[in-house]
Amino acid sequence: SFAKLDHHRAIRQGFPEVVFCQGKTVEQVATIVERLAERNKSVLATRASKEMYEAVRRLVPDSIYYELPRLIVVNREEARQDDDRYILVMTAGTSDIPVAEEAAITAELMGNRVTRVFDVGVAGIHRLLAQHEIIQQANVLIVVAGMEGALASVVGGMVDKPVIAVPTSVGYGANFGGLAALLAMLNSCAAGIAVVNIDNGFGAGRMASIINHMR
Amino acid sequence: SFAKLDHHRAIRQGFPEVVFCQGKTVEQVATIVERLAERNKSVLATRASKEMYEAVRRLVPDSIYYELPRLIVVNREEARQDDDRYILVMTAGTSDIPVAEEAAITAELMGNRVTRVFDVGVAGIHRLLAQHEIIQQANVLIVVAGMEGALASVVGGMVDKPVIAVPTSVGYGANFGGLAALLAMLNSCAAGIAVVNIDNGFGAGRMASIINHMR
Amino acid sequence: SFAKLDHHRAIRQGFPEVVFCQGKTVEQVATIVERLAERNKSVLATRASKEMYEAVRRLVPDSIYYELPRLIVVNREEARQDDDRYILVMTAGTSDIPVAEEAAITAELMGNRVTRVFDVGVAGIHRLLAQHEIIQQANVLIVVAGMEGALASVVGGMVDKPVIAVPTSVGYGANFGGLAALLAMLNSCAAGIAVVNIDNGFGAGRMASIINHMR
Amino acid sequence: SFAKLDHHRAIRQGFPEVVFCQGKTVEQVATIVERLAERNKSVLATRASKEMYEAVRRLVPDSIYYELPRLIVVNREEARQDDDRYILVMTAGTSDIPVAEEAAITAELMGNRVTRVFDVGVAGIHRLLAQHEIIQQANVLIVVAGMEGALASVVGGMVDKPVIAVPTSVGYGANFGGLAALLAMLNSCAAGIAVVNIDNGFGAGRMASIINHMR
Amino acid sequence: SFAKLDHHRAIRQGFPEVVFCQGKTVEQVATIVERLAERNKSVLATRASKEMYEAVRRLVPDSIYYELPRLIVVNREEARQDDDRYILVMTAGTSDIPVAEEAAITAELMGNRVTRVFDVGVAGIHRLLAQHEIIQQANVLIVVAGMEGALASVVGGMVDKPVIAVPTSVGYGANFGGLAALLAMLNSCAAGIAVVNIDNGFGAGRMASIINHMR
Amino acid sequence: SFAKLDHHRAIRQGFPEVVFCQGKTVEQVATIVERLAERNKSVLATRASKEMYEAVRRLVPDSIYYELPRLIVVNREEARQDDDRYILVMTAGTSDIPVAEEAAITAELMGNRVTRVFDVGVAGIHRLLAQHEIIQQANVLIVVAGMEGALASVVGGMVDKPVIAVPTSVGYGANFGGLAALLAMLNSCAAGIAVVNIDNGFGAGRMASIINHMR
Amino acid sequence: SFAKLDHHRAIRQGFPEVVFCQGKTVEQVATIVERLAERNKSVLATRASKEMYEAVRRLVPDSIYYELPRLIVVNREEARQDDDRYILVMTAGTSDIPVAEEAAITAELMGNRVTRVFDVGVAGIHRLLAQHEIIQQANVLIVVAGMEGALASVVGGMVDKPVIAVPTSVGYGANFGGLAALLAMLNSCAAGIAVVNIDNGFGAGRMASIINHMR
Amino acid sequence: SFAKLDHHRAIRQGFPEVVFCQGKTVEQVATIVERLAERNKSVLATRASKEMYEAVRRLVPDSIYYELPRLIVVNREEARQDDDRYILVMTAGTSDIPVAEEAAITAELMGNRVTRVFDVGVAGIHRLLAQHEIIQQANVLIVVAGMEGALASVVGGMVDKPVIAVPTSVGYGANFGGLAALLAMLNSCAAGIAVVNIDNGFGAGRMASIINHMR
Ligand SMILES: Nc1ncnc2c1ncn2[C@@H]1O[C@H](COP(=O)(O)O)[C@@H](O)[C@H]1O
Ligand SMILES: Nc1ncnc2c1ncn2[C@@H]1O[C@H](COP(=O)(O)O)[C@@H](O)[C@H]1O
Ligand SMILES: Nc1ncnc2c1ncn2[C@@H]1O[C@H](COP(=O)(O)O)[C@@H](O)[C@H]1O
Ligand SMILES: Nc1ncnc2c1ncn2[C@@H]1O[C@H](COP(=O)(O)O)[C@@H](O)[C@H]1O
Ligand SMILES: [Mg+2]
Ligand SMILES: [Mg+2]
Ligand SMILES: [Mg+2]
Ligand SMILES: [Mg+2]
Ligand SMILES: [Mg+2]
Ligand SMILES: [Mg+2]
Ligand SMILES: [Mg+2]
Ligand SMILES: [Mg+2]
Repeated sequence: SFAKLDHHRAIRQGFPEVVFCQGKTVEQVATIVERLAERNKSVLATRASKEMYEAVRRLVPDSIYYELPRLIVVNREEARQDDDRYILVMTAGTSDIPVAEEAAITAELMGNRVTRVFDVGVAGIHRLLAQHEIIQQANVLIVVAGMEGALASVVGGMVDKPVIAVPTSVGYGANFGGLAALLAMLNSCAAGIAVVNIDNGFGAGRMASIINHMR
Repeated sequence: SFAKLDHHRAIRQGFPEVVFCQGKTVEQVATIVERLAERNKSVLATRASKEMYEAVRRLVPDSIYYELPRLIVVNREEARQDDDRYILVMTAGTSDIPVAEEAAITAELMGNRVTRVFDVGVAGIHRLLAQHEIIQQANVLIVVAGMEGALASVVGGMVDKPVIAVPTSVGYGANFGGLAALLAMLNSCAAGIAVVNIDNGFGAGRMASIINHMR
Repeated sequence: SFAKLDHHRAIRQGFPEVVFCQGKTVEQVATIVERLAERNKSVLATRASKEMYEAVRRLVPDSIYYELPRLIVVNREEARQDDDRYILVMTAGTSDIPVAEEAAITAELMGNRVTRVFDVGVAGIHRLLAQHEIIQQANVLIVVAGMEGALASVVGGMVDKPVIAVPTSVGYGANFGGLAALLAMLNSCAAGIAVVNIDNGFGAGRMASIINHMR
Repeated sequence: SFAKLDHHRAIRQGFPEVVFCQGKTVEQVATIVERLAERNKSVLATRASKEMYEAVRRLVPDSIYYELPRLIVVNREEARQDDDRYILVMTAGTSDIPVAEEAAITAELMGNRVTRVFDVGVAGIHRLLAQHEIIQQANVLIVVAGMEGALASVVGGMVDKPVIAVPTSVGYGANFGGLAALLAMLNSCAAGIAVVNIDNGFGAGRMASIINHMR
Repeated sequence: SFAKLDHHRAIRQGFPEVVFCQGKTVEQVATIVERLAERNKSVLATRASKEMYEAVRRLVPDSIYYELPRLIVVNREEARQDDDRYILVMTAGTSDIPVAEEAAITAELMGNRVTRVFDVGVAGIHRLLAQHEIIQQANVLIVVAGMEGALASVVGGMVDKPVIAVPTSVGYGANFGGLAALLAMLNSCAAGIAVVNIDNGFGAGRMASIINHMR
Repeated sequence: SFAKLDHHRAIRQGFPEVVFCQGKTVEQVATIVERLAERNKSVLATRASKEMYEAVRRLVPDSIYYELPRLIVVNREEARQDDDRYILVMTAGTSDIPVAEEAAITAELMGNRVTRVFDVGVAGIHRLLAQHEIIQQANVLIVVAGMEGALASVVGGMVDKPVIAVPTSVGYGANFGGLAALLAMLNSCAAGIAVVNIDNGFGAGRMASIINHMR
Repeated sequence: SFAKLDHHRAIRQGFPEVVFCQGKTVEQVATIVERLAERNKSVLATRASKEMYEAVRRLVPDSIYYELPRLIVVNREEARQDDDRYILVMTAGTSDIPVAEEAAITAELMGNRVTRVFDVGVAGIHRLLAQHEIIQQANVLIVVAGMEGALASVVGGMVDKPVIAVPTSVGYGANFGGLAALLAMLNSCAAGIAVVNIDNGFGAGRMASIINHMR
Repeated sequence: SFAKLDHHRAIRQGFPEVVFCQGKTVEQVATIVERLAERNKSVLATRASKEMYEAVRRLVPDSIYYELPRLIVVNREEARQDDDRYILVMTAGTSDIPVAEEAAITAELMGNRVTRVFDVGVAGIHRLLAQHEIIQQANVLIVVAGMEGALASVVGGMVDKPVIAVPTSVGYGANFGGLAALLAMLNSCAAGIAVVNIDNGFGAGRMASIINHMR
């Protein structure tokens, strides 16, 4: 009764409602995931603590937990044979990986092939240029970066495919919890970039998946 | 010499460099547009004053000026017969139209069919629901809204297509020049939304065009 | 001596002074609640920890504790038979419930009938429209929402009754501790909405109660 | 076609759609007011320039213009004989009067009796206490204040009726365009206060009117 | 060697350097206090943890600790017989007392008579007016308030003596860690008010002491 | 009727109400100054345009206008023979002089002897040290500085008298309209400093005058 | 008397005091430049209007005006034959040129060879890489960029020489007057970068000059 | 695979990539440091917890840990005999020492002689002037200060050498995590100052080292 699950969402938007665990009690999360798992083949819960997962697993034994990106996943779809299009998930640094994995696993769960290229920040531009081929052939790109968030602009200027930029809260001081990267990405002078919330790997994965499935 | 035009951009990204006129002198704008018009079939200059256009027209007589969105356009492409996919450009209010037109004309110049639905803000939700059909059948959606920017969330929850949200600076007081709508759109609980800079109709039109051309 | 209780308040404003526990010591809270309970039939203390309640219960045994909204309540009024007017408390998500309960319990303690409709955020607008009847018949509405806070605008456009909007700090990143929802609600283009502080369920409940008792 | 007027609003909410003129062209304003005036007895347009009014008057000769609050008003209702309940509109300073008049005229147009008490800021508290009677007998109160916005808290503690607080942008320096008063009002330790946007006299007048008509 | 104590300060400014403990190690605090206590009759250390005090007491046995305001004090001055002028320290709420005590104890240590009037916030203005006499006869006033900080303005308008306003971080939500009260106090329309940093009881006590000693 | 002049203020606080002209119409200013000048020997109006002064002079011929600080002054007191105590008004740069003059003239009008030392910013510390004598002998100090506002800290560490710090909006970029200097002054590690609003020369002059008259 | 010129500065720091014209009257600027020109071979005045220059030229006929960067320059040094080290001044876009010229002319006036490379923003990274040689051989680099300010990071990662980053206010919306570029540059993950104020070409030129003269 | 180490950096920029430990797992840090230590004579890891160091030491036994600045260092260079140029690292207070040590140890590891002068904040300007000699003879200066950050301006005006300013988060209230010092330093009216991120001792040490090695 505390949650009005949007069971219609899978029909309306192609994927069931995703659970945002932060601010919910352990019991609420467990109950919601259970109810979703009764009706859907895929379930995704983000920002879940380990303790939440323990409670979920008791009710939904085939659920999995990804520790770094803090995701609970139920995936009962048979393996989809995706074509050769892939979503490329890139990070500027190693510390951005948890957010990148949230995006990547979200996209995979939604039936996309995902390629990862991590730790290619612009302070060593050759690392990025060395990935030229893999960047050019991506169908959709997710660029995850904290600190000054410059990677999005450089990648945005290299491709003719859509770039989803994800600012992260990695950094300190005048980073102001990701604000620096967020503003940088919003002000990118490269066109073909759009931005999601700070640390919102899920949102980027979802958006990229929708675009990647367009024919 | 003051401008290193990125003449390679049309090849690399499918459309020539777009001129950002704000902060440039009238002479700089005129020279840059002229040089771009020598090499390209389409030229776009954003945030152009009428005075800038007067100077451009002397050098590039077939250029056009759109007063509301302050765009200078050169378009020598023969009419492209687009298929039945369209980009839907929506606004919450009448005051958001200049930004919406910047997006719409950008997308049209890049070869897209564009449909406009203006003034359907959420404070009268029936106006929005009355457009249900046209919303469902859009291939990509651009949602332009100032004030509280809520339209993006409602539309984002209705479709399974990508939504590009454009916050505008329309409003006053605690709107803080578009910040209110920007934050609202970034925090949207609907997935499948990504955001561009405040008043950045051009960026939204470009992003939507890239996505709309994916096959 | 550390607290000058405003014992006159019940006469002046119809309800005794409410204790804001945050920033007070356990002893201060216990003493203040005890002194208020000596003179009043109803006592309310907000943002109280469990430890504070333990200390209060020793002095005021008929006090109750609501864990989610962190309220200490003393209620010695005989059950008031309210007429059929009700205050409707709505939330956009499940995570907003603690704040909503603070509002609802405050209003109930002040003699109002309260109806709860939780988890009807705008990303699935049909959930909201399904509650059309219950929304239309409410006498006063409290809309509790975090993230982009869009629910207030949509509800505000549906009714001709006053809407009290409560932004919550639910969210992350560019939510900035509830700022996003606060700004959205202040900038609502629906008229008939007024806003209280972030997470201020108590303030909303009090305001709604005052309005609901107007004849 | 640029404006989808919400002609249903008068039925749904008891008053037709109000025109927000800022950011609209003179022609748009004139056309919208004309179309509204064809169907409604009352029309209100806010933040209108004198030039806009000139254009409106040509199409709607019985429209009036209030220069200080920048309102265009059409009022064809026969004088409603209101009972003795009144909305009290107060200001802290003389510079807050334009916003206060926006609120007062809005409320009057919606059929309320309005009493004005201006320039009673808290730096001379006796000026406020001298109005004790008129404050106590008000049915709803609108408190308009810039600078530190303290008037709302003091008035809020004196009455058992709802207080709508309107921060204004009057001030300078660390006032930050009304932010200081806005934050003060949101953080008021008096209960029974709710806040509208900076300089939003209209919103306060509308909210007060809804409440004042409750029986 | 890590600290260049300003031993000249007692001569130059009438009171030895005061230790700001936050961000220092326990050992640093203990050493600095010891060195100051060797040369001075009074020593004051602010924002000191209990653990710091334990370390200090071992080296300076006649030091005292005030838990609520977190002060370490050494006071070897013989009792000064102050004249009848007093500094009045007022708070709006009970939660503001720790900051107020920091101010009061600072002023007492510097040889001032201090009177305390706590919990007289403006939401119950009669509580404040009841203190009229004690307010009028104060020589300097320190007003400590969180939330909307309105007390400073009201008091500032009642007296012809200097008012030092201290915003506190008491509050939540749009209080933003004391910003709301700070801005309110800076924008006070009462003249004769100056402001110190958020939660800076020490600074207020020092400033008041300097003024109170003027002849 | 639009202004409730606080005629009691001269008795209560030793100086009549001061007119804040910004946001008032020319007529309002003229009327208010006239009414004040009928009852008081001194009148002060701040932030007055030249046009406002023209209107005032017609009604109050013995009023004077100071163009740089934009003050209208009426001064009919016979010259007060002040003792040798003086308020020292200092600025960091030449651009801060208008605000400094607002403070100085305010203080002079209130019967204080004022000494001016301008353009002694800390980037050339010898300029400041060269004024050592005049600084040491001041009774109260007003330090006016924009940009980084460092002058207040250095002066604050040199004297045992109260320092009123006035941040100015002089600067650009990350100065954010005076915010940089304001924050610097609030965070000064010198004790004996209190701060008024950005550009509030009047407030500083008033505060300094009150202190300077203490015996 | 309004200005205490720091005539010692040329000796202490190798270049006379530079005049910041904003906020000064035309007369003040003219007088200050005249006095500086009497004693120094070089004079520099920043943020000067054309009208200010007219007044200066009457007093100092050999002064020059640079319109774009708004500089007044007096340069009576005989041409210094600099060695082959140069300061490289780069911009991301054409609109950043005025700030870049302020930096370049400042550095030239202080005896440095300056090379300019404008309009090589990262959205077309090949434009930047094409300048590889000229970048590698610079002795000090000044990187001027608005919008997302990413150029500083990319250049910072290419060289082993110091980079002075200058954010500009070029952009709009969530650029917030240069804040986006400023934060990006401060958070650069490339080491060897330091930042000056938004639009502070002068400061960058001065800093680069000091470094470039180190032997 | 999670980290693409920039092994080319030592060649390109004279020092290997530095590890930013915050946001990385203990295992990631250990692996990265190990891999860097295999190829380089010097390794530096910043913001490392003690636990991280324990893991590193198992793999790289000759690594050292500096607890206050939280640095892991590997240094296998034979002692470089630096000439008599030194980098001067100064702090305003004792609480700024951890950041200052991060800068100093970084610079030492990169082959510079470093002199430390701590706790010479401007509130006791004689402490600073007493260091006149050591300040004048420094080749590059790093000024580390929290609170109001004024030390940078005063030092900047005393020398003709480059000053790297490091704001720290030391302070409270309106310090806003170092923002106050950051803005002050960016707005310094002394020329020859450039700024790095809040608490970024590493960046300052690196920048100073590059400059100090210029010949
Ligand atoms: N304390 C620090 N502050 C800023 N940047 C740093 C710091 N420590 C290391 N870095 C940089 O951070 C980058 C490493 O990021 P990552 O790939 O996440 O390890 C390198 O380019 C370093 O130069
Ligand atoms: N420059 C100023 N800054 C701040 N407050 C002022 C200023 N000038 C006048 N005031 C105050 O503003 C109030 C008058 O406001 P008003 O009623 O709008 O005229 C009085 O309380 C004055 O003390
Ligand atoms: N464009 C500029 N940005 C920052 N500081 C400047 C600028 N131009 C001059 N200055 C500094 O401003 C000071 C002069 O301030 P003032 O006394 O008001 O003329 C000198 O110390 C200059 O170094
Ligand atoms: N309205 C706009 N908003 C953001 N970026 C733009 C806009 N118009 C053009 N641009 C981009 O700005 C760059 C041109 O900058 P510039 O070299 O200063 O002319 C190009 O990369 C364009 O894609
Ligand atoms: Mg890395
Ligand atoms: Mg509309
Ligand atoms: Mg939900
Ligand atoms: Mg007044
Ligand atoms: Mg209380
Ligand atoms: Mg000067
Ligand atoms: Mg360009
Ligand atoms: Mg110290």
